[in-house]
Amino acid sequence: MTNHPTRYEQLADDMAQAIREGLLRPGDRLPSVRETCRRRGISPATVFQAYGLLETRGLIESRPRSGYYVQVPRRALRELPQAAVPRAEATDVAVSALAFELLESTRNLDVVPLGSAFPGAHLFPFDRLARHGARAMRRLNPRQITNALTAGDEGLRLALRRRYALQGVPLAADELVVTNGALEALNLCLQAVTRPGDVVVIESPTFYAALQVLERLRLRAVEVATDPAEGVDLAALERVLQQQRVAACWLMPTFQNPLGALMPVARKQALVALLAHHGVPLIEDDVYGELYADARRPPPAKAFDAAGLVLHCSSFSKCLAPGYRVGWAAAGRHAGSVQRLKMMSSLAAALPPQLAIADYLAQGGYDRHLRQLRAQLADEQRRMVRLVECHFPRHTRVTRPAGGYFLWLELPPAVDALALHQRAMAQGISTAPGVLFSADRRFTHHLRLNTGHPGDRRVDGAMRTLGALASAMAG
Amino acid sequence: MTNHPTRYEQLADDMAQAIREGLLRPGDRLPSVRETCRRRGISPATVFQAYGLLETRGLIESRPRSGYYVQVPRRALRELPQAAVPRAEATDVAVSALAFELLESTRNLDVVPLGSAFPGAHLFPFDRLARHGARAMRRLNPRQITNALTAGDEGLRLALRRRYALQGVPLAADELVVTNGALEALNLCLQAVTRPGDVVVIESPTFYAALQVLERLRLRAVEVATDPAEGVDLAALERVLQQQRVAACWLMPTFQNPLGALMPVARKQALVALLAHHGVPLIEDDVYGELYADARRPPPAKAFDAAGLVLHCSSFSKCLAPGYRVGWAAAGRHAGSVQRLKMMSSLAAALPPQLAIADYLAQGGYDRHLRQLRAQLADEQRRMVRLVECHFPRHTRVTRPAGGYFLWLELPPAVDALALHQRAMAQGISTAPGVLFSADRRFTHHLRLNTGHPGDRRVDGAMRTLGALASAMAG
Repeated sequence: MTNHPTRYEQLADDMAQAIREGLLRPGDRLPSVRETCRRRGISPATVFQAYGLLETRGLIESRPRSGYYVQVPRRALRELPQAAVPRAEATDVAVSALAFELLESTRNLDVVPLGSAFPGAHLFPFDRLARHGARAMRRLNPRQITNALTAGDEGLRLALRRRYALQGVPLAADELVVTNGALEALNLCLQAVTRPGDVVVIESPTFYAALQVLERLRLRAVEVATDPAEGVDLAALERVLQQQRVAACWLMPTFQNPLGALMPVARKQALVALLAHHGVPLIEDDVYGELYADARRPPPAKAFDAAGLVLHCSSFSKCLAPGYRVGWAAAGRHAGSVQRLKMMSSLAAALPPQLAIADYLAQGGYDRHLRQLRAQLADEQRRMVRLVECHFPRHTRVTRPAGGYFLWLELPPAVDALALHQRAMAQGISTAPGVLFSADRRFTHHLRLNTGHPGDRRVDGAMRTLGALASAMAG
Repeated sequence: MTNHPTRYEQLADDMAQAIREGLLRPGDRLPSVRETCRRRGISPATVFQAYGLLETRGLIESRPRSGYYVQVPRRALRELPQAAVPRAEATDVAVSALAFELLESTRNLDVVPLGSAFPGAHLFPFDRLARHGARAMRRLNPRQITNALTAGDEGLRLALRRRYALQGVPLAADELVVTNGALEALNLCLQAVTRPGDVVVIESPTFYAALQVLERLRLRAVEVATDPAEGVDLAALERVLQQQRVAACWLMPTFQNPLGALMPVARKQALVALLAHHGVPLIEDDVYGELYADARRPPPAKAFDAAGLVLHCSSFSKCLAPGYRVGWAAAGRHAGSVQRLKMMSSLAAALPPQLAIADYLAQGGYDRHLRQLRAQLADEQRRMVRLVECHFPRHTRVTRPAGGYFLWLELPPAVDALALHQRAMAQGISTAPGVLFSADRRFTHHLRLNTGHPGDRRVDGAMRTLGALASAMAG
């Protein structure tokens, strides 16, 4: 289980954290293998495994006959993009046709999908899922059909609760509702705690679907500054909470889209406490939670939810089964409302995909799949960062998330990212320009790039082209 | 294909229509077989087949050595319930917990499901669907996954359009969106044409889920009188349209839930014309359209939609695959909005159920399944009407729908149907009391009974018990 990391994973995790926290800095020599063995009471093989893992992830490098060193960025590119300071007033949300255009472009298989929101489909065990689906459907007692209305298949809900419990997140038996993907879960949770005209706090930049959902539900957004590495700025959030009535916060504390920010554990705890103090529900979008590059799953904010105010939403769409549309909400004290809203808006989630996944989970192999997927995504991220370093203009800043499959680029201010996107599309390359990620169209010289397509041979050429286009625009 | 009825089906259909229209009245002798052969230029075998079909459906009876006669009701029970005259003012919708309680009760397999909204699960070809699902998923090209976002699988949409075209309902290539069941389709269509506070016309009585959806979207309902046999009263509707701004009509012109009313073709045409004249969109719920007892599918209102103002919604949940949650909207000129709303609220419908159904449709057998299903539902309806006649109090009125699987009972006014429902539940029998079907809790002595559970041996006893409880309350 991912919840009990092996000794070498544990060691790699500790080192990665030390690097992230700046305790070990670029160019620093790591403790020798012998010294680490002695200090930790572990075998040399374990240390070699751990260092090998860190090397694979691009965090350290070995220098022949010298030892292991924290990786030095080739240029100053590793500098993180800066956090934006959004306006604190609520704005009505009006999302352009850009997001629809972007989704439409991902349907064109000739386009290199750097703007896509999904990882490459070849990363997922569709064959195995199909076999499990067939097996589960053959065994289906037709009477299960009505039983699965509305909260979802009981076997799947039990498997999910078990998995959460092993990750230290106990969920109440009746708080889990299976939904048509995480997006429906987020919609239902938001409806459960808001009325049209209410103010909802979101990150800046934020996932464009959040903007669309707020627009649809006629809610007003307050964007709060979000650090590219550590997530939402709690001091800024507190000021907003003191200044106006906030109906809900919709945040992505783990591998935020588009930044990839991961709130440190203490910060997540403080976030939950702050919101509980103000009685404000937190809608937590955790769809990338399983896609961590380090050895352990970062706990979701839900892990610290004593008040039942965290409405935790996730799905299998990014980590196991895109297209199956199996998501869920664990909505704490609002679970009853979410369930009733689910019944009113789409009755229940489709049963065949639920049964396929439940059977797959029961037979094991999910954690093995996830380990492989995480390693592939981490490798590709490393490669993509190098491509940015090689091809993009000077002063480009790029994030280096500890999970997920997005990079966020801050280009030189002269580069109009929307124009860059359009020029790239003309050459068969999609990107996600920064204006998509804010209601008031800030992030004009920013790009989100998808690094979730390892093995797509067109990516290198596309990155070279994109970098050249950006360099030309940077002057 | 159901679209090309055989000669005997055609004859049976014509006779059934003559009976419904009163051209042939209870006790009338039908034309002799010889005479019919001569007049129609068909063989005696064909006439015998047609008369056999009508007999099976309880419309006629054969009297030995005498001929065929239009069936006479044993008591005056066949008198139809009366249409209610609702208030013409808009009312805010507030649906009680009763609907949720009802759905919850259907999960208890020990309860006789006379209140259920679904037919018995044993009526559906789950094994075959599972085989088709397995086959389709094995063949899945992972790249199809992103292609199916947002409008749905192209193969399924093509099959649906083909089916509609053969039924005389041409749909535009880009107007069809696959949804998570018909309920999501109805929700999205309603959102596409309304804003909170708007007035929506519904039938009286109406499907309780419609009331819940209006409540959720903060819309106001105007209920229009609806005839138990022929559907919504067009004169009443026209008065409403003249008196106030109506944002949309949400109607079920074919086998309305709960009445089972079927609007005659001319009335459907007049409805579409009236609404087009006023520029008011019609949201057509056609989920029971395939469950006709006669020989031909009644055309949906969408068949007469020249202005693109009919937002037609349906699904496979009642006729092929409950639990698969595969529905659709053909939303005319509002198709683009519906598709965008779909993307914002749940992105896309699950792919495995879509592929399973598309493969099943492609391999044939759907129409054979439907013929069998229709015959079973018609038989059981006939049986259930007899059970009402046998066990229920004098002056009970009952509908005799030409399709679907509901009976609507008007009990003597002394019978409080909600109290009756509660007493029945205490004995393990669910019903759907009339108050569920109106925002202002009229229909206090009415019941909807589900006749879609042929072969459930508990039904006879339940009907006896229910009748006895009602008789006791009638005094």
